[in-house]
Amino acid sequence: MVTHPGSTPPTQLNSPPGPRRVCVVGAGLVGALAAIYLAQRGWQVEVYDTRPDLRDPETATQAKNSQRSINLALSVRGLSALRATGLGLEEQVMQLAIPMRGRMIHDRWGRQTGQAYGVFGQCINSVDRAALTVELVNAAEQFENVNFHFDHTLRSCNLDDRQAVFLDRTTGSEVVVETDWIVGADGAYSVCRRQLMRKTRVDYSQVYIKHGYCELTLPPIVTASGKPQYAMDPHHLHIWPRHTFMMIALPNPDCSFTCTLFMPFEKFGELTTREELLAFFDCYFPDAVPLIGVDRLVTDYFRNPKGSLMSLKCHPYHYEDRLVIVGDAAHSMVPFYGQGMNCGFEDVEILFSILDQHGVTAIRTPGEKGTTDTRLQNALACYTETRHPDAVAICDLAMYNYIEMRSSVVSWRYLIRKKLEDQFHRWFPEIIIPLYTMVSFTQTPYHLAVLQAARQTQWLKRGIWVTVLGLAALVGFGFRKNLGR
Amino acid sequence: MVTHPGSTPPTQLNSPPGPRRVCVVGAGLVGALAAIYLAQRGWQVEVYDTRPDLRDPETATQAKNSQRSINLALSVRGLSALRATGLGLEEQVMQLAIPMRGRMIHDRWGRQTGQAYGVFGQCINSVDRAALTVELVNAAEQFENVNFHFDHTLRSCNLDDRQAVFLDRTTGSEVVVETDWIVGADGAYSVCRRQLMRKTRVDYSQVYIKHGYCELTLPPIVTASGKPQYAMDPHHLHIWPRHTFMMIALPNPDCSFTCTLFMPFEKFGELTTREELLAFFDCYFPDAVPLIGVDRLVTDYFRNPKGSLMSLKCHPYHYEDRLVIVGDAAHSMVPFYGQGMNCGFEDVEILFSILDQHGVTAIRTPGEKGTTDTRLQNALACYTETRHPDAVAICDLAMYNYIEMRSSVVSWRYLIRKKLEDQFHRWFPEIIIPLYTMVSFTQTPYHLAVLQAARQTQWLKRGIWVTVLGLAALVGFGFRKNLGR
Repeated sequence: MVTHPGSTPPTQLNSPPGPRRVCVVGAGLVGALAAIYLAQRGWQVEVYDTRPDLRDPETATQAKNSQRSINLALSVRGLSALRATGLGLEEQVMQLAIPMRGRMIHDRWGRQTGQAYGVFGQCINSVDRAALTVELVNAAEQFENVNFHFDHTLRSCNLDDRQAVFLDRTTGSEVVVETDWIVGADGAYSVCRRQLMRKTRVDYSQVYIKHGYCELTLPPIVTASGKPQYAMDPHHLHIWPRHTFMMIALPNPDCSFTCTLFMPFEKFGELTTREELLAFFDCYFPDAVPLIGVDRLVTDYFRNPKGSLMSLKCHPYHYEDRLVIVGDAAHSMVPFYGQGMNCGFEDVEILFSILDQHGVTAIRTPGEKGTTDTRLQNALACYTETRHPDAVAICDLAMYNYIEMRSSVVSWRYLIRKKLEDQFHRWFPEIIIPLYTMVSFTQTPYHLAVLQAARQTQWLKRGIWVTVLGLAALVGFGFRKNLGR
Repeated sequence: MVTHPGSTPPTQLNSPPGPRRVCVVGAGLVGALAAIYLAQRGWQVEVYDTRPDLRDPETATQAKNSQRSINLALSVRGLSALRATGLGLEEQVMQLAIPMRGRMIHDRWGRQTGQAYGVFGQCINSVDRAALTVELVNAAEQFENVNFHFDHTLRSCNLDDRQAVFLDRTTGSEVVVETDWIVGADGAYSVCRRQLMRKTRVDYSQVYIKHGYCELTLPPIVTASGKPQYAMDPHHLHIWPRHTFMMIALPNPDCSFTCTLFMPFEKFGELTTREELLAFFDCYFPDAVPLIGVDRLVTDYFRNPKGSLMSLKCHPYHYEDRLVIVGDAAHSMVPFYGQGMNCGFEDVEILFSILDQHGVTAIRTPGEKGTTDTRLQNALACYTETRHPDAVAICDLAMYNYIEMRSSVVSWRYLIRKKLEDQFHRWFPEIIIPLYTMVSFTQTPYHLAVLQAARQTQWLKRGIWVTVLGLAALVGFGFRKNLGR
């Protein structure tokens, strides 16, 4: 058992009283962003991750072959959290991103129809998970009060003694880290959350959907000049909705697309031979087959893992002034609203705005060691209560969108409603706002967006009734006039 | 690391092919009963429990001081599962039990009103958890193909290799047990369930209620002759319903009662001094104070732990032919319907009736080692699908009864409805059956009981309407006749 040297605060000019220490568990997207926010507020930040450094070329390849989805859709909430650092992260990240202004629906005959995401041309942005993570880890490492420790697996948190125990996977030894508090950003299978559940009464639910997913690559077209080109419009998120299953494709900067096939696990189980697979694709995704290429399709499908999808909620997110969980550790959602990362980034922005409001600082009052920081404790309690309804709302919305994307998008009812709502939004942009717009292009708290959308549906229904009745009255009036003549 | 000698099947007459091995995790009520059922079917049964043997006097004292509730209410489902062993367990256990034929409601002025549980005098039975456990462990140990291993904590299940790894707490060494399958009866914080969740997609939810509980002892009255006597009627479950909190009391064979105070945790937090506690009890439970005794009340309240209460559901309960979870490990409920143990016992009865129907046997076919037993696998899948709706139903019912017991029991609406329903049940005992009767005094699957109760409520409502309309018509008819005269 080794006490970690990294956990001692570095000598600084303002050494006594010296900054307090925080341990961030997870150096993924949300963990790295939290490290930046913490560093800017003067905390001594130690970031631990069980995985090796993604910046090693070998690790990057392994990560690419892992189950995690490769591209993500960054939208307003995520961008706002990046902007709030004041480090120009938003601009840096947008250089890696490919804007997508709408969905491109592919029907069974290969015909394509565009559906804009926002009536004012707003876009969501396809970004590469690994590239974005590297960007954020690099940005965090610019701060001298941030240290990253990769290959460290969290074993347990001794919250009473403000300690976290890690296993150093490179040496096999245990590392005990002394820390004032812990930020758990260690994903859906969070060890921090498990530690939280041992210390306090946590309401918790996880539900798996019947669908799994498998990623396939749709390569660039190589032109005569040797320059790669996109095989489909890169500024759309492509969807092949087939009611009980679907495929989507997001563009990558190298002119390829990453396709994700979402399908019930039984269906995956049924497609076991090359012939069955090709017959299935020829039937349902005929236009995608030549673009992916038969051999690549077969290889990718049979080689790539079939991931499962889960919706996870819990409450509370904190324990006293000692631990808080953010991102997927606190709320993991199915990927159909493209809000997982955006919500995680927004967690960080909201958490720190609450910490700032409560006057939480990294400055250690001399002699305070061991006592409870009531400001931090109150701030974390406030964070749980503020954030929980929104996390629940977006988890539920993502589950709902799972039906919308694979089925509703091609129904007449849905399309008429969308047309109407979009038109009203153009006329009254501040009053009637489509739900998708509120979620992806505003920072309206998710649960309020859901409430407003429900109200709008009511208004729309009433409006339709009033219109119908008005028309009937007019017709009746005309009829009577005709009779009178 | 030691391979456990106990895991080798003992030499028997029918040695080759020899019985298959099953590992039961948890030697509590449900685990011990499962061991008996397994032993009767010829399995080589190894039972492991993390706790020491309850039959050691020292352990028994510790258990008494633990958080677990001391007495339980055994009713028809539990008794049926005991009877099905054919070992006379039901009779043995009933000798330890105190029948309770109804609730005794104590109002704020100490007045008592009885409410029978069943219109035909049916009783639920107060039994001591420890005594019942000892009875079952002793019964299981009578079988030579059952071995108990106490002080063994399950570390992990290597389900692929059909192994379970335990920590022997007496020696500190690891024990690897080879087993054909595992029955997890290790309670609400089940390690088996966690292992299941690592192997397959488990939907899971746990919800804590805002109330905690604290146990208090209401001692016997010692008569002039020195013989102890019950201070209240022992053949009722005593309830002090106070809407937002309540106290209950169950009789023990030594003429004492165990009182359990259920109250929001904040309220527990508010009662921090002797004066506050006594003022509270004098106000709400005035008749209980002299019976418990002021000093004992204060000592018990401040010494005894404040337990939390959780409702836990999951699905599925099994993994292939290798693991099944039963009892609280699969569904942990709040204690307000007195069905936790009964449901766990019924799990065992139903599980084995399904195994028997599927022709699952303990006989090893020569050379089959390592291959999947499809009969067992199908039986376990059938068990999950059969049992899940019932487990969900009783968890929800228990949660509902939490309101009924502390509040509804004293409302007019509830009392009128109960009177009506009881009367109809007397008239049509096979057709109209109160929900409480179906749950506690029949073996109707829980989810069907809930459905039938909902139908009965509909009929009752319609019946009331028809009666009201009929009466109105009669009155109207009389009125018209009067007019006619």
